[in-house]
Amino acid sequence: MKQAISFITLGVADLERSRRFYRALGWQESSGSETTVAFFQAGSVAFALFGRDALAEDARVSPNGSGFPRFTLAHNVATEAEVDTLIREAVAAGGSLVLAGEQAPWGGFRGYFADPDGFLWEVCFNPFFSLDERGFVQLPT
Amino acid sequence: MKQAISFITLGVADLERSRRFYRALGWQESSGSETTVAFFQAGSVAFALFGRDALAEDARVSPNGSGFPRFTLAHNVATEAEVDTLIREAVAAGGSLVLAGEQAPWGGFRGYFADPDGFLWEVCFNPFFSLDERGFVQLPT
Repeated sequence: MKQAISFITLGVADLERSRRFYRALGWQESSGSETTVAFFQAGSVAFALFGRDALAEDARVSPNGSGFPRFTLAHNVATEAEVDTLIREAVAAGGSLVLAGEQAPWGGFRGYFADPDGFLWEVCFNPFFSLDERGFVQLPT
Repeated sequence: MKQAISFITLGVADLERSRRFYRALGWQESSGSETTVAFFQAGSVAFALFGRDALAEDARVSPNGSGFPRFTLAHNVATEAEVDTLIREAVAAGGSLVLAGEQAPWGGFRGYFADPDGFLWEVCFNPFFSLDERGFVQLPT
């Protein structure tokens, strides 16, 4: 299996609410979006918002699930100062503050916001992993 | 907020088991990995495996959660035939078959496997979204 992730799809309770949130963050939807699914290009990965029940049904699994969704997304930035700026932006767009920026035990600086469904976004300054010219993390090989 | 996802981190029950699974799929860990966290470059996004409790603790949220984790990852391929081939590979590597490849209502062909924690991977042939030379989906703008 090629070392690649093509899509990350979040199963959301209210697609229009989620669309509004990500658009308010300044994200631009693909013209490939449809009424029932929203697509956003995010570097080499496509980010999709789809109804939670529809997503579970597509995989033939139960849509029931609660609590911590056991994953996080992260958005890395180039300076500590940008961490809180970006979290403030996300809260202004309708997100929730989860953790204001603070030093991480591993030496970085990070905070978290939640999107309207409670999906967690870490906003992170990592002095050990540099960002390429497009702003994406390039791990050491 | 830049339209970017830097990291996707899965909170896993047994980090060594998850490492073995993704390595068995042929994925190569970054030398930036540590005992407590595994990193894999996957195009412009970094994929991380981290302990479930540690991930929740980092965001100061409760680690409690069960059932459908409300998201899926997808790996797009260039032909229908590759869908089942890749799902078989994933099952051979220690994953579980969730849905064998079949026609999707929207006109593509897809199946699902689950990783050792039950995180769902769709393997998808989508005739409407082409893959670039690196094999990544490029949505219409």
